[in-house]
Amino acid sequence: MNNLTALINTIEPIYQEVANQANDHLNQLTKPQGSLGKLEDIARQVAGITGEVMPTFDKKAVIVMAGDHGVCEEGISAFPAEVTPQMVLNFLYGGAAVNVLARHAGADVVCVDMGVNAELEHPNLVSRKVRKGTRNMAKEAALTLDETIQAIEAGALIVEDLVAKGYRLFATGEMGIGNTTASAAILCALTGMEASQTVGRGTGIDDTTWLHKQGVVNKALEVNALREPLNTSAEYALEVLSKVGGLEIAGLVGVILGAAKHRCPVVVDGFISSTAALVASRLAPLSASYMLASHLSQEQGHTKLLEAVGLAAMLQMDMRLGEGTGAVLVFNLIDAAGKIMKEMATFESAGVSRG
Amino acid sequence: MNNLTALINTIEPIYQEVANQANDHLNQLTKPQGSLGKLEDIARQVAGITGEVMPTFDKKAVIVMAGDHGVCEEGISAFPAEVTPQMVLNFLYGGAAVNVLARHAGADVVCVDMGVNAELEHPNLVSRKVRKGTRNMAKEAALTLDETIQAIEAGALIVEDLVAKGYRLFATGEMGIGNTTASAAILCALTGMEASQTVGRGTGIDDTTWLHKQGVVNKALEVNALREPLNTSAEYALEVLSKVGGLEIAGLVGVILGAAKHRCPVVVDGFISSTAALVASRLAPLSASYMLASHLSQEQGHTKLLEAVGLAAMLQMDMRLGEGTGAVLVFNLIDAAGKIMKEMATFESAGVSRG
Repeated sequence: MNNLTALINTIEPIYQEVANQANDHLNQLTKPQGSLGKLEDIARQVAGITGEVMPTFDKKAVIVMAGDHGVCEEGISAFPAEVTPQMVLNFLYGGAAVNVLARHAGADVVCVDMGVNAELEHPNLVSRKVRKGTRNMAKEAALTLDETIQAIEAGALIVEDLVAKGYRLFATGEMGIGNTTASAAILCALTGMEASQTVGRGTGIDDTTWLHKQGVVNKALEVNALREPLNTSAEYALEVLSKVGGLEIAGLVGVILGAAKHRCPVVVDGFISSTAALVASRLAPLSASYMLASHLSQEQGHTKLLEAVGLAAMLQMDMRLGEGTGAVLVFNLIDAAGKIMKEMATFESAGVSRG
Repeated sequence: MNNLTALINTIEPIYQEVANQANDHLNQLTKPQGSLGKLEDIARQVAGITGEVMPTFDKKAVIVMAGDHGVCEEGISAFPAEVTPQMVLNFLYGGAAVNVLARHAGADVVCVDMGVNAELEHPNLVSRKVRKGTRNMAKEAALTLDETIQAIEAGALIVEDLVAKGYRLFATGEMGIGNTTASAAILCALTGMEASQTVGRGTGIDDTTWLHKQGVVNKALEVNALREPLNTSAEYALEVLSKVGGLEIAGLVGVILGAAKHRCPVVVDGFISSTAALVASRLAPLSASYMLASHLSQEQGHTKLLEAVGLAAMLQMDMRLGEGTGAVLVFNLIDAAGKIMKEMATFESAGVSRG
């Protein structure tokens, strides 16, 4: 049994009885039952995940994984591939959107080089480079199975290290020019959706490039013989991830599985992160109950992608940046749900009549 | 010219050139143009409203207005009318959901008695009681025109007082058993929607009560002869507000107009607050550009209601509580947008290539 199988096998169901206890408490509070909607869902879910009726999350981290994509040589992005390492440095110097929003949420940014096609050095960079970018999936498999498993395991170990440092709440983020193309291909291969439904505008491409991008996705699926939408097995998901995925996406699969193993909630960012969530849920179906969706991205196909994982977005901000920017905004809602549990009066304590 | 007309006439357009300056700055930041979606919309809007490219909002308030509804005697709510004063006391003692979420957002709760059907006293209660509840709109006009104007002016003056104390950002909230019924009637009268499309479940009613509630709304529209959906005049909006509205709803119309007068952003909560926003936008069309929507309520008809005002919700939390609970959650997003403007690196400062 390899390490990945061992990781998958450690993931257990959430504590349903603790979630029920949280629900009982919610029903005592001065509001019509269920009227706080998804804030109540969050409260129940994090109780079930952690085994505490009213957990607190003092240390939070957004794990931003970066990787390059060989498929960029097909000309599918509005930005040149050199932007990937440039943005990694921006994350490390604290100037990117995710840095600003993470500080706002009281969270730390953990920046990981999973496969950037450049030499990068910085004291705060977590270097787990598997290789310098993927191969061009339109011509061959993007990754070998070994490389893919190595990236997943690296992601899970990063969570393990952070848990040892007291972090208990995670968000996924990514950076990788070309990774909406890889994500669209994964989504097609795992759900049977057409490229015209999954390929979006990424960082902002014109109509001609958009059609070309669809053609590249179809070519990648054909070259790699990935057309088994009814195959929901873990083995097929791993094959898809390696053939048309990316190192940062595989790393995030590991982050999600690691969070589930350690009974920590993990907030899934936009389109690319949600592809990682879909793969994680195929590798370990129980991992889905440890995930929270964040926002509905402008990237087309995201709604169906979230449905495929069984998640519902809380924010509708028309964002399409990635990096974890949508996910860290949800940390505030998780904190809010925690305070609802701890600070609201009950019908009895406030002397309010019930319906 | 009465005070209301004077109030309406003081409302001016937002400073478009300052909004444009904010936009120019956003386009220098290290992200694809527009990729932060509604966070960028917020940044442009608050710049245009305040006339500052990067305003800060140190003091924020959610104004929670309470009032009773004579129509409750028709049996349209899951909760008894006595809950209105009980919940007002809960607001004053800090135990309601809006108190918890306002503290979380660093905002103050200003609790106003606009027309509760009980004697209420508390040092922190702002008492502006116009009368003890409205009349039963299913039998007669809920309010006279004078009472309605008095309530609107009271709302605007509360904002004026708060602005004098340094508050620059507001949210609307309300409490009033029966006020989803009044709101549904206003929405029907102003848009031509049918009661079956505007009447929701409120605090949680069964199918029989739901159909009965629709019948009550139709009766109120008939008794009060309010079926001129093509009439978008200020006069008709005022007539609708008085005949089938409520004192807390009229007060919130005043809050919104007062915020627009003083060039302060005002975040609109759920279904009932949005009805006040619709009336305000009919009284003073320019006021709409000072409003921000918050969440899409579970109450049916809310999507179309927001469209009618020209607003788009940012949160999709399946909430249906009112009190301002959805609106205060948006304060965090406004703060986030402000930090994006102030703290993000530019393409030049970070040495990142443009697309």
